[in-house]
Amino acid sequence: MALLAAWLEGVGVPHVVVREPGGTPLGEAIREVALTRTDLDVGPASELLLMLAARAALVRDVLRPALDEGKLVIADRFSMSTLAYQAHARGLDPERVRSAIEFATGGLRPDLCVVLDVPLEEASARRKAGAARPDRIEREGEAFRRKVRDAYLALTETEPGAELLDARGTPAEVHARIRDLIVARLPAVVPAVARAGQSIGEGERDGA
Amino acid sequence: MALLAAWLEGVGVPHVVVREPGGTPLGEAIREVALTRTDLDVGPASELLLMLAARAALVRDVLRPALDEGKLVIADRFSMSTLAYQAHARGLDPERVRSAIEFATGGLRPDLCVVLDVPLEEASARRKAGAARPDRIEREGEAFRRKVRDAYLALTETEPGAELLDARGTPAEVHARIRDLIVARLPAVVPAVARAGQSIGEGERDGA
Repeated sequence: MALLAAWLEGVGVPHVVVREPGGTPLGEAIREVALTRTDLDVGPASELLLMLAARAALVRDVLRPALDEGKLVIADRFSMSTLAYQAHARGLDPERVRSAIEFATGGLRPDLCVVLDVPLEEASARRKAGAARPDRIEREGEAFRRKVRDAYLALTETEPGAELLDARGTPAEVHARIRDLIVARLPAVVPAVARAGQSIGEGERDGA
Repeated sequence: MALLAAWLEGVGVPHVVVREPGGTPLGEAIREVALTRTDLDVGPASELLLMLAARAALVRDVLRPALDEGKLVIADRFSMSTLAYQAHARGLDPERVRSAIEFATGGLRPDLCVVLDVPLEEASARRKAGAARPDRIEREGEAFRRKVRDAYLALTETEPGAELLDARGTPAEVHARIRDLIVARLPAVVPAVARAGQSIGEGERDGA
Protein backbone atom coordinates (compact mmCIF):
# COMPACT_ATOMS: atom_id res chain seq x y z
CA MET A 1 0.00 0.00 0.00
CA ALA A 2 2.78 2.44 0.93
CA LEU A 3 4.76 1.72 -2.26
CA LEU A 4 1.63 2.02 -4.39
CA ALA A 5 0.67 5.33 -2.77
CA ALA A 6 4.21 6.66 -3.28
CA TRP A 7 4.16 5.65 -6.96
CA LEU A 8 0.74 7.27 -7.55
CA GLU A 9 2.02 10.40 -5.81
CA GLY A 10 5.12 10.39 -8.03
CA VAL A 11 3.20 10.03 -11.30
CA GLY A 12 0.61 12.61 -10.22
CA VAL A 13 -2.51 10.48 -9.87
CA PRO A 14 -4.83 12.04 -7.24
CA HIS A 15 -5.76 9.25 -4.86
CA VAL A 16 -6.85 8.25 -1.36
CA VAL A 17 -5.65 5.20 0.56
CA VAL A 18 -7.90 3.55 3.14
CA ARG A 19 -7.97 0.40 5.20
CA GLU A 20 -10.95 -1.67 6.30
CA PRO A 21 -12.48 -1.81 8.77
CA GLY A 22 -11.56 1.81 9.49
CA GLY A 23 -10.73 4.86 7.42
CA THR A 24 -13.15 7.15 9.30
CA PRO A 25 -13.34 8.05 13.01
CA LEU A 26 -16.43 5.82 13.31
CA GLY A 27 -14.77 3.02 11.34
CA GLU A 28 -11.66 3.10 13.54
CA ALA A 29 -13.88 2.95 16.66
CA ILE A 30 -15.66 -0.06 15.13
CA ARG A 31 -12.30 -1.65 14.24
CA GLU A 32 -11.32 -1.42 17.90
CA VAL A 33 -14.52 -3.25 18.92
CA ALA A 34 -14.57 -5.77 16.07
CA LEU A 35 -10.89 -6.69 15.83
CA THR A 36 -8.50 -5.15 18.33
CA ARG A 37 -10.41 -6.10 21.49
CA THR A 38 -9.68 -9.81 21.67
CA ASP A 39 -11.69 -10.11 24.93
CA LEU A 40 -15.05 -9.72 23.16
CA ASP A 41 -17.06 -12.68 21.89
CA VAL A 42 -18.14 -11.64 18.39
CA GLY A 43 -20.51 -14.04 16.59
CA PRO A 44 -20.61 -14.32 12.77
CA ALA A 45 -23.69 -12.12 12.29
CA SER A 46 -22.35 -9.37 14.58
CA GLU A 47 -18.95 -9.56 12.87
CA LEU A 48 -20.59 -9.05 9.46
CA LEU A 49 -22.78 -6.18 10.66
CA LEU A 50 -19.85 -4.40 12.34
CA MET A 51 -17.68 -4.69 9.21
CA LEU A 52 -20.55 -3.30 7.14
CA ALA A 53 -21.28 -0.47 9.59
CA ALA A 54 -17.66 0.63 9.14
CA ARG A 55 -17.89 0.22 5.35
CA ALA A 56 -21.11 2.26 5.12
CA ALA A 57 -19.32 5.13 6.91
CA LEU A 58 -16.27 4.78 4.64
CA VAL A 59 -18.37 4.85 1.46
CA ARG A 60 -20.47 7.82 2.63
CA ASP A 61 -17.73 9.96 4.17
CA VAL A 62 -14.58 9.13 2.17
CA LEU A 63 -15.01 6.97 -0.96
CA ARG A 64 -18.01 8.67 -2.60
CA PRO A 65 -16.60 12.18 -2.03
CA ALA A 66 -13.16 11.05 -3.34
CA LEU A 67 -14.68 9.44 -6.44
CA ASP A 68 -16.82 12.53 -7.03
CA GLU A 69 -13.56 14.54 -7.08
CA GLY A 70 -12.12 12.13 -9.65
CA LYS A 71 -9.65 10.52 -7.28
CA LEU A 72 -8.43 6.94 -7.44
CA VAL A 73 -9.37 4.96 -4.32
CA ILE A 74 -6.97 2.31 -3.00
CA ALA A 75 -8.59 0.20 -0.29
CA ASP A 76 -6.90 -2.46 1.80
CA ARG A 77 -9.85 -4.93 1.75
CA PHE A 78 -13.40 -4.30 0.55
CA SER A 79 -16.45 -6.40 -0.24
CA MET A 80 -14.62 -9.49 -1.49
CA SER A 81 -13.06 -9.86 1.97
CA THR A 82 -16.56 -9.87 3.47
CA LEU A 83 -17.56 -12.71 1.16
CA ALA A 84 -14.36 -14.64 1.92
CA TYR A 85 -14.38 -14.19 5.70
CA GLN A 86 -17.97 -13.73 6.84
CA ALA A 87 -19.76 -15.84 4.21
CA HIS A 88 -17.39 -18.64 3.21
CA ALA A 89 -15.19 -18.97 6.31
CA ARG A 90 -17.78 -18.09 9.01
CA GLY A 91 -20.57 -19.91 7.21
CA LEU A 92 -23.14 -17.13 6.74
CA ASP A 93 -25.46 -17.46 3.74
CA PRO A 94 -23.62 -15.85 0.76
CA GLU A 95 -26.81 -14.37 -0.72
CA ARG A 96 -27.73 -12.74 2.62
CA VAL A 97 -24.19 -11.39 2.86
CA ARG A 98 -24.30 -10.01 -0.68
CA SER A 99 -27.60 -8.31 0.02
CA ALA A 100 -26.21 -6.74 3.22
CA ILE A 101 -23.07 -5.58 1.35
CA GLU A 102 -25.27 -3.98 -1.31
CA PHE A 103 -27.15 -2.08 1.41
CA ALA A 104 -23.97 -0.87 3.15
CA THR A 105 -22.15 0.22 -0.02
CA GLY A 106 -25.13 1.52 -1.97
CA GLY A 107 -23.87 -0.74 -4.79
CA LEU A 108 -20.34 0.69 -4.95
CA ARG A 109 -17.89 -1.87 -6.38
CA PRO A 110 -14.19 -1.73 -7.22
CA ASP A 111 -13.06 -1.62 -10.86
CA LEU A 112 -10.12 -3.84 -9.94
CA CYS A 113 -9.70 -6.16 -6.98
CA VAL A 114 -6.14 -7.49 -6.64
CA VAL A 115 -5.95 -10.69 -4.60
CA LEU A 116 -2.40 -11.07 -3.28
CA ASP A 117 -1.72 -14.79 -3.10
CA VAL A 118 1.00 -16.47 -1.05
CA PRO A 119 1.15 -20.05 0.24
CA LEU A 120 -0.27 -20.42 3.78
CA GLU A 121 3.21 -21.18 5.15
CA GLU A 122 4.65 -17.95 3.75
CA ALA A 123 1.66 -15.97 5.04
CA SER A 124 2.28 -17.47 8.47
CA ALA A 125 5.99 -16.61 8.35
CA ARG A 126 5.19 -13.02 7.32
CA ARG A 127 2.68 -12.66 10.16
CA LYS A 128 5.24 -13.88 12.67
CA ALA A 129 7.89 -11.52 11.28
CA GLY A 130 5.47 -8.58 11.58
CA ALA A 131 5.65 -6.50 14.75
CA ALA A 132 1.88 -6.00 15.16
CA ARG A 133 -0.06 -7.92 17.78
CA PRO A 134 -2.47 -10.28 15.98
CA ASP A 135 -6.08 -9.11 16.01
CA ARG A 136 -9.10 -11.30 16.86
CA ILE A 137 -9.51 -12.71 13.34
CA GLU A 138 -5.75 -13.15 12.85
CA ARG A 139 -5.78 -15.34 15.94
CA GLU A 140 -7.97 -17.92 14.20
CA GLY A 141 -6.22 -21.18 13.41
CA GLU A 142 -4.87 -22.73 10.22
CA ALA A 143 -8.19 -24.40 9.30
CA PHE A 144 -9.89 -21.00 9.25
CA ARG A 145 -7.09 -19.46 7.20
CA ARG A 146 -7.26 -22.32 4.69
CA LYS A 147 -11.01 -21.70 4.30
CA VAL A 148 -10.37 -17.99 3.72
CA ARG A 149 -7.69 -18.73 1.12
CA ASP A 150 -9.91 -21.24 -0.70
CA ALA A 151 -12.72 -18.67 -0.69
CA TYR A 152 -10.50 -15.95 -2.18
CA LEU A 153 -9.26 -18.32 -4.90
CA ALA A 154 -12.84 -19.31 -5.78
CA LEU A 155 -14.10 -15.71 -5.69
CA THR A 156 -11.26 -14.57 -7.95
CA GLU A 157 -12.70 -16.87 -10.62
CA THR A 158 -16.19 -15.41 -10.43
CA GLU A 159 -16.12 -11.81 -9.13
CA PRO A 160 -16.03 -9.06 -11.77
CA GLY A 161 -12.77 -7.12 -11.68
CA ALA A 162 -10.89 -9.69 -9.60
CA GLU A 163 -7.25 -10.52 -10.42
CA LEU A 164 -5.13 -13.12 -8.68
CA LEU A 165 -1.55 -11.92 -8.20
CA ASP A 166 1.46 -13.95 -7.11
CA ALA A 167 2.58 -12.12 -3.95
CA ARG A 168 5.74 -14.12 -3.28
CA GLY A 169 9.00 -12.19 -3.32
CA THR A 170 10.16 -8.86 -1.95
CA PRO A 171 7.83 -5.90 -1.36
CA ALA A 172 9.43 -4.14 -4.35
CA GLU A 173 8.82 -7.13 -6.62
CA VAL A 174 5.17 -7.40 -5.55
CA HIS A 175 4.74 -3.65 -5.94
CA ALA A 176 6.07 -3.80 -9.52
CA ARG A 177 3.54 -6.53 -10.36
CA ILE A 178 0.67 -4.50 -8.85
CA ARG A 179 1.79 -1.40 -10.73
CA ASP A 180 1.93 -3.31 -14.04
CA LEU A 181 -1.54 -4.69 -13.38
CA ILE A 182 -3.00 -1.25 -12.69
CA VAL A 183 -1.43 0.18 -15.85
CA ALA A 184 -2.79 -2.74 -17.90
CA ARG A 185 -6.26 -2.89 -16.36
CA LEU A 186 -6.97 0.77 -15.63
CA PRO A 187 -5.12 2.64 -18.40
CA ALA A 188 -7.46 5.62 -18.20
CA VAL A 189 -6.50 6.50 -14.63
CA VAL A 190 -2.73 6.36 -15.18
CA PRO A 191 -1.17 9.26 -17.12
CA ALA A 192 0.78 8.46 -20.29
CA VAL A 193 4.00 9.59 -18.62
CA ALA A 194 3.65 6.81 -16.04
CA ARG A 195 2.86 4.18 -18.66
CA ALA A 196 5.84 5.27 -20.75
CA GLY A 197 8.02 5.42 -17.64
CA GLN A 198 7.37 1.82 -16.74
CA SER A 199 10.55 0.51 -18.32
CA ILE A 200 12.53 3.21 -16.48
CA GLY A 201 10.87 1.98 -13.28
CA GLU A 202 11.96 -1.62 -13.90
CA GLY A 203 15.09 -1.17 -11.79
CA GLU A 204 12.91 -0.67 -8.72
CA ARG A 205 11.99 -4.34 -8.82
CA ASP A 206 15.43 -5.21 -7.50
CA GLY A 207 15.58 -2.35 -5.03
CA ALA A 208 13.92 -2.13 -1.63
CA MET B 1 -38.28 -1.96 33.96
CA ALA B 2 -37.14 -2.13 37.60
CA LEU B 3 -40.71 -2.34 38.93
CA LEU B 4 -41.61 -5.00 36.36
CA ALA B 5 -38.53 -7.08 37.22
CA ALA B 6 -39.29 -6.80 40.95
CA TRP B 7 -42.88 -7.92 40.38
CA LEU B 8 -41.81 -10.91 38.24
CA GLU B 9 -39.27 -11.80 40.93
CA GLY B 10 -41.99 -11.61 43.59
CA VAL B 11 -44.45 -13.82 41.74
CA GLY B 12 -41.75 -16.31 40.82
CA VAL B 13 -41.55 -15.89 37.02
CA PRO B 14 -38.01 -16.71 35.82
CA HIS B 15 -36.93 -13.83 33.62
CA VAL B 16 -34.08 -11.78 32.19
CA VAL B 17 -34.08 -8.02 31.69
CA VAL B 18 -31.98 -6.45 28.92
CA ARG B 19 -31.56 -3.08 27.29
CA GLU B 20 -30.77 -2.26 23.68
CA PRO B 21 -28.30 -1.60 22.30
CA GLY B 22 -26.35 -3.53 24.92
CA GLY B 23 -27.00 -6.49 27.16
CA THR B 24 -23.75 -8.29 26.22
CA PRO B 25 -20.11 -7.16 26.52
CA LEU B 26 -20.03 -6.70 22.73
CA GLY B 27 -23.38 -4.89 22.76
CA GLU B 28 -22.25 -2.49 25.47
CA ALA B 29 -19.05 -1.75 23.49
CA ILE B 30 -21.23 -1.06 20.43
CA ARG B 31 -23.55 1.14 22.53
CA GLU B 32 -20.54 3.23 23.49
CA VAL B 33 -19.64 3.73 19.81
CA ALA B 34 -23.19 4.14 18.48
CA LEU B 35 -24.74 6.30 21.20
CA THR B 36 -22.53 7.46 24.04
CA ARG B 37 -19.72 8.94 21.93
CA THR B 38 -21.36 12.10 20.68
CA ASP B 39 -18.18 13.10 18.80
CA LEU B 40 -18.65 10.46 16.08
CA ASP B 41 -20.52 11.16 12.84
CA VAL B 42 -22.82 8.13 12.43
CA GLY B 43 -24.81 7.97 9.18
CA PRO B 44 -28.20 6.23 8.93
CA ALA B 45 -26.87 2.99 7.41
CA SER B 46 -24.04 2.70 9.95
CA GLU B 47 -26.46 3.44 12.78
CA LEU B 48 -28.77 0.64 11.62
CA LEU B 49 -25.92 -1.85 11.17
CA LEU B 50 -24.45 -1.05 14.61
CA MET B 51 -27.82 -1.49 16.33
CA LEU B 52 -28.28 -4.81 14.55
CA ALA B 53 -24.74 -6.00 15.36
CA ALA B 54 -25.59 -5.46 19.04
CA ARG B 55 -28.97 -7.18 18.62
CA ALA B 56 -27.44 -10.22 16.88
CA ALA B 57 -25.11 -10.67 19.87
CA LEU B 58 -27.99 -10.23 22.32
CA VAL B 59 -30.16 -12.81 20.54
CA ARG B 60 -27.33 -15.33 20.23
CA ASP B 61 -25.77 -14.96 23.68
CA VAL B 62 -28.67 -13.99 25.96
CA LEU B 63 -32.19 -14.16 24.50
CA ARG B 64 -32.08 -17.54 22.76
CA PRO B 65 -30.43 -19.26 25.76
CA ALA B 66 -32.94 -17.62 28.16
CA LEU B 67 -35.91 -18.64 26.02
CA ASP B 68 -34.51 -22.18 25.73
CA GLU B 69 -34.53 -22.29 29.55
CA GLY B 70 -38.18 -21.18 29.56
CA LYS B 71 -37.47 -17.70 30.89
CA LEU B 72 -39.49 -14.58 30.13
CA VAL B 73 -37.43 -11.93 28.34
CA ILE B 74 -38.08 -8.25 29.09
CA ALA B 75 -36.24 -6.01 26.61
CA ASP B 76 -36.02 -2.22 26.76
CA ARG B 77 -36.39 -1.68 22.96
CA PHE B 78 -36.23 -4.29 20.21
CA SER B 79 -37.04 -4.45 16.50
CA MET B 80 -39.95 -1.99 16.52
CA SER B 81 -37.53 0.70 17.69
CA THR B 82 -35.33 -0.04 14.67
CA LEU B 83 -38.30 0.47 12.37
CA ALA B 84 -39.32 3.68 14.17
CA TYR B 85 -35.85 5.25 14.38
CA GLN B 86 -33.76 3.92 11.51
CA ALA B 87 -36.49 3.38 8.90
CA HIS B 88 -39.18 6.00 9.53
CA ALA B 89 -37.21 8.77 11.27
CA ARG B 90 -33.84 8.36 9.48
CA GLY B 91 -35.45 7.59 6.14
CA LEU B 92 -33.97 4.16 5.33
CA ASP B 93 -36.11 1.89 3.16
CA PRO B 94 -38.46 -0.02 5.53
CA GLU B 95 -38.27 -3.26 3.54
CA ARG B 96 -34.45 -3.19 3.57
CA VAL B 97 -34.54 -2.52 7.31
CA ARG B 98 -36.98 -5.40 7.92
CA SER B 99 -34.78 -7.76 5.92
CA ALA B 100 -31.70 -6.70 7.92
CA ILE B 101 -33.61 -7.14 11.21
CA GLU B 102 -34.63 -10.64 10.11
CA PHE B 103 -30.98 -11.50 9.45
CA ALA B 104 -29.77 -10.12 12.80
CA THR B 105 -32.48 -11.75 14.93
CA GLY B 106 -32.85 -15.01 13.02
CA GLY B 107 -36.56 -14.21 12.94
CA LEU B 108 -37.00 -13.81 16.73
CA ARG B 109 -39.98 -11.56 17.53
CA PRO B 110 -41.60 -10.50 20.79
CA ASP B 111 -44.98 -11.95 21.82
CA LEU B 112 -45.92 -8.56 23.23
CA CYS B 113 -44.50 -5.13 22.45
CA VAL B 114 -45.69 -2.43 24.85
CA VAL B 115 -45.38 1.08 23.41
CA LEU B 116 -45.33 3.57 26.28
CA ASP B 117 -46.97 6.72 25.00
CA VAL B 118 -46.64 10.19 26.51
CA PRO B 119 -47.12 13.57 24.83
CA LEU B 120 -43.87 15.03 23.44
CA GLU B 121 -43.94 17.80 26.07
CA GLU B 122 -44.08 15.31 28.92
CA ALA B 123 -41.32 13.17 27.34
CA SER B 124 -39.20 16.31 27.12
CA ALA B 125 -39.88 17.23 30.77
CA ARG B 126 -39.00 13.67 31.89
CA ARG B 127 -35.75 13.76 29.89
CA LYS B 128 -34.78 17.06 31.49
CA ALA B 129 -35.60 15.73 34.98
CA GLY B 130 -33.43 12.63 34.35
CA ALA B 131 -29.86 12.77 35.56
CA ALA B 132 -28.30 10.97 32.56
CA ARG B 133 -26.38 12.91 29.93
CA PRO B 134 -28.36 12.72 26.65
CA ASP B 135 -26.87 10.29 24.12
CA ARG B 136 -26.32 11.03 20.42
CA ILE B 137 -29.87 10.14 19.35
CA GLU B 138 -31.45 11.84 22.37
CA ARG B 139 -29.74 15.05 21.24
CA GLU B 140 -31.80 15.11 18.05
CA GLY B 141 -34.36 17.91 17.93
CA GLU B 142 -38.13 18.02 18.29
CA ALA B 143 -38.80 17.36 14.58
CA PHE B 144 -36.91 14.06 14.83
CA ARG B 145 -38.74 13.08 18.03
CA ARG B 146 -42.10 13.88 16.43
CA LYS B 147 -41.20 11.59 13.50
CA VAL B 148 -40.26 8.82 15.92
CA ARG B 149 -43.50 9.21 17.86
CA ASP B 150 -45.60 9.21 14.67
CA ALA B 151 -43.76 6.08 13.54
CA TYR B 152 -44.43 4.25 16.82
CA LEU B 153 -48.12 5.19 16.69
CA ALA B 154 -48.39 3.93 13.09
CA LEU B 155 -46.41 0.73 13.82
CA THR B 156 -48.58 -0.02 16.84
CA GLU B 157 -51.53 -0.29 14.42
CA THR B 158 -49.82 -2.81 12.17
CA GLU B 159 -47.14 -4.79 14.04
CA PRO B 160 -48.26 -8.14 15.49
CA GLY B 161 -48.16 -8.13 19.31
CA ALA B 162 -47.99 -4.34 19.61
CA GLU B 163 -49.98 -2.57 22.34
CA LEU B 164 -50.16 1.17 22.88
CA LEU B 165 -50.15 2.06 26.57
CA ASP B 166 -50.89 5.44 28.15
CA ALA B 167 -47.66 6.17 30.05
CA ARG B 168 -48.76 9.37 31.77
CA GLY B 169 -48.80 9.31 35.57
CA THR B 170 -46.46 8.02 38.26
CA PRO B 171 -44.05 5.11 37.72
CA ALA B 172 -46.27 2.98 40.00
CA GLU B 173 -49.36 3.80 37.93
CA VAL B 174 -47.63 2.96 34.67
CA HIS B 175 -46.21 -0.23 36.18
CA ALA B 176 -49.70 -1.35 37.24
CA ARG B 177 -50.96 -0.85 33.67
CA ILE B 178 -48.05 -2.83 32.23
CA ARG B 179 -48.61 -5.61 34.76
CA ASP B 180 -52.31 -5.81 33.90
CA LEU B 181 -51.47 -5.93 30.21
CA ILE B 182 -48.99 -8.79 30.70
CA VAL B 183 -51.49 -10.76 32.75
CA ALA B 184 -54.18 -10.21 30.11
CA ARG B 185 -52.04 -10.81 27.04
CA LEU B 186 -49.61 -13.50 28.26
CA PRO B 187 -51.66 -15.49 30.79
CA ALA B 188 -49.57 -18.63 30.28
CA VAL B 189 -46.36 -17.04 31.54
CA VAL B 190 -47.85 -15.58 34.74
CA PRO B 191 -48.65 -18.08 37.54
CA ALA B 192 -52.23 -18.26 38.81
CA VAL B 193 -51.12 -16.85 42.16
CA ALA B 194 -50.04 -13.63 40.48
CA ARG B 195 -53.24 -13.33 38.47
CA ALA B 196 -55.34 -13.91 41.60
CA GLY B 197 -53.15 -11.49 43.57
CA GLN B 198 -53.75 -8.63 41.19
CA SER B 199 -56.43 -7.00 43.27
CA ILE B 200 -54.16 -7.26 46.34
CA GLY B 201 -51.52 -5.46 44.33
CA GLU B 202 -53.84 -2.58 43.50
CA GLY B 203 -52.61 -0.49 46.40
CA GLU B 204 -49.19 -0.29 44.78
CA ARG B 205 -50.65 1.99 42.15
CA ASP B 206 -50.77 4.81 44.66
CA GLY B 207 -47.33 4.01 46.14
CA ALA B 208 -43.95 4.98 44.74
